[in-house]
Amino acid sequence: MENLKQPTESNKKEKSTQEIVVLRWGHRPQRDARLTTHVALTARALGASGLLLSDTVDKKIKETTEKVTRNWGGKFFFEMETAWKKAVREWKAKGGIVVHLTAYGENIQTSDVLHRIRNSGKNVLLIVGSQKVPKEFFSNAVSDFNVSIGNQPHSECAALAVFLDRFFEGKELAKGFKKAKIWILPQERGKKTVFINKKMLGI
Amino acid sequence: MENLKQPTESNKKEKSTQEIVVLRWGHRPQRDARLTTHVALTARALGASGLLLSDTVDKKIKETTEKVTRNWGGKFFFEMETAWKKAVREWKAKGGIVVHLTAYGENIQTSDVLHRIRNSGKNVLLIVGSQKVPKEFFSNAVSDFNVSIGNQPHSECAALAVFLDRFFEGKELAKGFKKAKIWILPQERGKKTVFINKKMLGI
Repeated sequence: MENLKQPTESNKKEKSTQEIVVLRWGHRPQRDARLTTHVALTARALGASGLLLSDTVDKKIKETTEKVTRNWGGKFFFEMETAWKKAVREWKAKGGIVVHLTAYGENIQTSDVLHRIRNSGKNVLLIVGSQKVPKEFFSNAVSDFNVSIGNQPHSECAALAVFLDRFFEGKELAKGFKKAKIWILPQERGKKTVFINKKMLGI
Repeated sequence: MENLKQPTESNKKEKSTQEIVVLRWGHRPQRDARLTTHVALTARALGASGLLLSDTVDKKIKETTEKVTRNWGGKFFFEMETAWKKAVREWKAKGGIVVHLTAYGENIQTSDVLHRIRNSGKNVLLIVGSQKVPKEFFSNAVSDFNVSIGNQPHSECAALAVFLDRFFEGKELAKGFKKAKIWILPQERGKKTVFINKKMLGI
């Protein structure tokens, strides 16, 4: 039964002490519902601590994300409605830095921008836009770094995933999620899932 | 004016000789329109050669993707409607392997599955599902490898991005796209774009 064990939480010493919180800007409740859900679940699965859905409310996405966290474990917060300016101001007041993911920024592959972000040792508020973002996002009043995941048009969800994977050096994909009620046992073929308490999951 | 030059195409010798084509399965034209567009643009930006939208037609996504390729350069094909079974059969007949991205598969971080895929030296048809996929996708009649990007629920767009980034070791984010009419000059602040011929772009 050894392989039924949930992967253990990473050794604390190995973990980056820098925390990342995603700020999703420009969400349009109807149009962006699924993409923002993917952004939130990607943030959670790839090591971010939480997501701020700024300037708007979408209870359904909050419910979906929190249900995933209840069932699949770990800590991940989902906050809505905070004005982005307030979120940025408060983040900086607490000593954190702001990183803006944009196709126009310094290329994560060809520049040393990721090195500089990690070297700061500071917690990161990671701005992920949806619609065209306000010009001031690029200014140093808002962003300490503007980072591109390549300089081609693609997807904020893809960009977020690559940024987190590189920032945490892949470790987030190996870690266990505490207090999970359900987890997957990875295998070469087929689907294997372990449930702690099916009644609690309502399945 | 040196910095107005488009990045040069990677040296041929440095490029992986393995090609990746994405097979997007289970696309529902209304519901998945934006996500599949993001999947297609991510595939293009992160180094895949093309995308097969299997078993269905969505002309709008094809147009969007091809327009991006026309303007931003490089080669990227978009095919629709091919039955997935036929696509898999033909791919294997040409000596390629099939990799299925799924949360249930071998973890890309904790297993050596990526190493085995790259070591095969063969071209990869990368299946990216949308809805719940048919059971047979997990069988060796279809997939040579089932690969998970972590074993948590998140996003096929995120999973595709991380797979491509790791497979190509980030090089795809540095490469130039041939015959581009427009490209971005990455910089610390602001937005800088170069257009070859604004009339050709209709802007």
